[in-house]
Amino acid sequence: MPVLEAKGITYSYDGFVTVLEDVCFDINAGEIVGLLGPNGSGKSTLIKTVFDLLELQGGSVRLDGHEHSSPAAKSAAMYLASNDYLPQFLTGREYVDMLARLYDVEADPEAAARLFEMFSMGGRYHDLIEDYSHGMRKKTQLVSALLMRRPLTIIDETLNGIDIEALHLTERELTRLRDEGRSVVLCTHDFALLERLADRVLFLDHGLLVADADTAVLVEEHGSLADLVFGHLDAEHRRP
Amino acid sequence: MPVLEAKGITYSYDGFVTVLEDVCFDINAGEIVGLLGPNGSGKSTLIKTVFDLLELQGGSVRLDGHEHSSPAAKSAAMYLASNDYLPQFLTGREYVDMLARLYDVEADPEAAARLFEMFSMGGRYHDLIEDYSHGMRKKTQLVSALLMRRPLTIIDETLNGIDIEALHLTERELTRLRDEGRSVVLCTHDFALLERLADRVLFLDHGLLVADADTAVLVEEHGSLADLVFGHLDAEHRRP
Amino acid sequence: MPVLEAKGITYSYDGFVTVLEDVCFDINAGEIVGLLGPNGSGKSTLIKTVFDLLELQGGSVRLDGHEHSSPAAKSAAMYLASNDYLPQFLTGREYVDMLARLYDVEADPEAAARLFEMFSMGGRYHDLIEDYSHGMRKKTQLVSALLMRRPLTIIDETLNGIDIEALHLTERELTRLRDEGRSVVLCTHDFALLERLADRVLFLDHGLLVADADTAVLVEEHGSLADLVFGHLDAEHRRP
Amino acid sequence: MPVLEAKGITYSYDGFVTVLEDVCFDINAGEIVGLLGPNGSGKSTLIKTVFDLLELQGGSVRLDGHEHSSPAAKSAAMYLASNDYLPQFLTGREYVDMLARLYDVEADPEAAARLFEMFSMGGRYHDLIEDYSHGMRKKTQLVSALLMRRPLTIIDETLNGIDIEALHLTERELTRLRDEGRSVVLCTHDFALLERLADRVLFLDHGLLVADADTAVLVEEHGSLADLVFGHLDAEHRRP
Repeated sequence: MPVLEAKGITYSYDGFVTVLEDVCFDINAGEIVGLLGPNGSGKSTLIKTVFDLLELQGGSVRLDGHEHSSPAAKSAAMYLASNDYLPQFLTGREYVDMLARLYDVEADPEAAARLFEMFSMGGRYHDLIEDYSHGMRKKTQLVSALLMRRPLTIIDETLNGIDIEALHLTERELTRLRDEGRSVVLCTHDFALLERLADRVLFLDHGLLVADADTAVLVEEHGSLADLVFGHLDAEHRRP
Repeated sequence: MPVLEAKGITYSYDGFVTVLEDVCFDINAGEIVGLLGPNGSGKSTLIKTVFDLLELQGGSVRLDGHEHSSPAAKSAAMYLASNDYLPQFLTGREYVDMLARLYDVEADPEAAARLFEMFSMGGRYHDLIEDYSHGMRKKTQLVSALLMRRPLTIIDETLNGIDIEALHLTERELTRLRDEGRSVVLCTHDFALLERLADRVLFLDHGLLVADADTAVLVEEHGSLADLVFGHLDAEHRRP
Repeated sequence: MPVLEAKGITYSYDGFVTVLEDVCFDINAGEIVGLLGPNGSGKSTLIKTVFDLLELQGGSVRLDGHEHSSPAAKSAAMYLASNDYLPQFLTGREYVDMLARLYDVEADPEAAARLFEMFSMGGRYHDLIEDYSHGMRKKTQLVSALLMRRPLTIIDETLNGIDIEALHLTERELTRLRDEGRSVVLCTHDFALLERLADRVLFLDHGLLVADADTAVLVEEHGSLADLVFGHLDAEHRRP
Repeated sequence: MPVLEAKGITYSYDGFVTVLEDVCFDINAGEIVGLLGPNGSGKSTLIKTVFDLLELQGGSVRLDGHEHSSPAAKSAAMYLASNDYLPQFLTGREYVDMLARLYDVEADPEAAARLFEMFSMGGRYHDLIEDYSHGMRKKTQLVSALLMRRPLTIIDETLNGIDIEALHLTERELTRLRDEGRSVVLCTHDFALLERLADRVLFLDHGLLVADADTAVLVEEHGSLADLVFGHLDAEHRRP
């Protein structure tokens, strides 16, 4: 059973402007998948639809086997937003505790403290998030995902702007998640990162899935993911 | 004559903690150079020293042939900070005008408007920067660099977090700058971007230049820039 | 029945540092109450405790008659954080819709659009919140509170940094909430605002309620709220 | 000689929309003056014009006796922007040093450290500004103004969002600046603050100076500054 099963997702604004058209894909257990899409591709709408932040207009989404608006589905998946969306009036620890209650996960304060340490934020666990830099906020999001260990984690540009060592560490930890049968979707145009880490790549444009294939296959076919994406944009005359 | 000539740069905090030790390198005219460095490598101190934001403790820096604290040097180089450091109380246009006066450049309002258009910010040129998203602020930094066209531009993580089309466009425009004999330093760990664009790569760690070689040479030697950097970190036991 | 009933709230960090000591107060229906407290007064901990973001260590909190960690309590009260904590990946409209589902409120899209209009954000209702300025985010928080119309709304510094016209408008609208029997707690040290609007003022310091009285009584006694607060700080030798 | 002498300032966008019309006022030495203005009053344009961020279209501005675009004028006045515009890649100390060089002021590192201490930021002087909270950034702006001690300081909403103790401290320190013959302009609609601190109030609307009088006179005439401003807005039917 796939951890994410999207069937025939359709979305239009005000019934006129089509944003997503019959988008179908699965994310299997134990898979790291890249999700690529230029501006206006429908990528954001797709993610919001998956997480029931926008009401589905057509098609269906199942998370870990549950209809996506059910509590069981909401507890199966976690979304790390690109803009470090964190409650700044909480400390790192209070935030982790709040998430643990939300996902009904046993909070292991030592594991949390250890991860803060590993990400070079050891002394800051009890500080208010409003005192964290952007890089620290992104790392706090990553730590929280590594603690919650949901069946599915969608990471939206969160790996931009973190330091090299945190990136290296995160890559190792995401690989571990995968080895435990958990799944990760990476939204990023750090193509080298995807070529290193992603088993498969989805490429969305104009609301359609332009590509859904193993990374190795796409790289062999196009030379590199950059060539795939930029070649596609050039062919569309979208480069001024 | 190199556009940036750094000779024996040394820096320590309070005379004790050595941050930079005898760092020497040149950036030649018409070159795109990657600058890599983990946390604590001294990369930030190096950049601040180059731009005379920190007083030089040892060694010398020349920009376009001028001693780096002279007005001529200050007008030769531009720094795009990673944290979208822009005066939010100005509009895009007011900001461009202010820079033009600062660098004593002939402001071409049509060229500016055209670049805003190209970066999909056409309708926002007269809006306050405080109303811009982070992505738009980064693109505004890039547009301003493309308008000022200084002999040297240092771009510090500014290419993170912009959309794919803006990235594609920026790569083309930076190549043009290079073809005109201008130079660009890219601080980023988007390794694929550096492999596509950088002629040469500097790798700084613990205040020392660990590598300074052509990108092609480094890739041939190590497999990829990721392998170079992560291999170095692993050898140093810096991966927990 | 008070809309907020706090009895004997006690909180200490790690069992040592006392932050709140036997704090007792009620907020009655149809009341606007100011909450004042210097740094380290325990004000933030008090609010987090009320909203069950920190686990209660001693005492009890009831919201609209329900134990404060129950779903019924959570739906009775709304917290507007000082740091414009809003999901930036949603549009204004998507945010309002999400809140309406969360609070199980009938979303009236026309009322929302009208309030956006009134707060001079008419054209921005369908834009992403990440494109809003800080002032607009604060106004979006206020609009959402005026739409949800919960029995209790706690407004934490949200009125700082909005423009004069929005402030004027908000004062009128909060008065309307009160006239309908709803309650508002204002955390602010805009003393003139409190003197204009608050029926009662709570003043917290060192984890103790220093004052809990009608605004008119406090003003008569001390000359002004500023005199009350600054006089207290001076008496404590907390002015360097 | 006034420290700021504005004569007949006129500004229009594209020669059509009049933003400022023949605005004339002086700020005398040793005066604290409030500047009030609703959205669209022209207040921002006025400040930008004073600081030569917008080119003057008509009239003249003199700062400390010098034509406002001259280096002497630029060194006489300091602007604290409402949006904590600080270079986040510098530490507090590096920022203060940079300002001292810019204004050609003798930097007293001990005085700076003492002010950081007084504003409860003692341990953070050597941290990067990007790790400061919004409140700390505002306090860093205030500290820098207290160190530079320019003849004129314009404080644009910077006192919003700081804690009560910092506000109390700032009021005392601004009074000291005034007693030394320096001048401060406060842009804020914290009316109680203006009633406590401002000798005089300027009220701008629709590009015209609606009021320019001693605070005591305005309070006597209108009851309070809030009554003056809200009464004006109501009379203009600007309350929806």
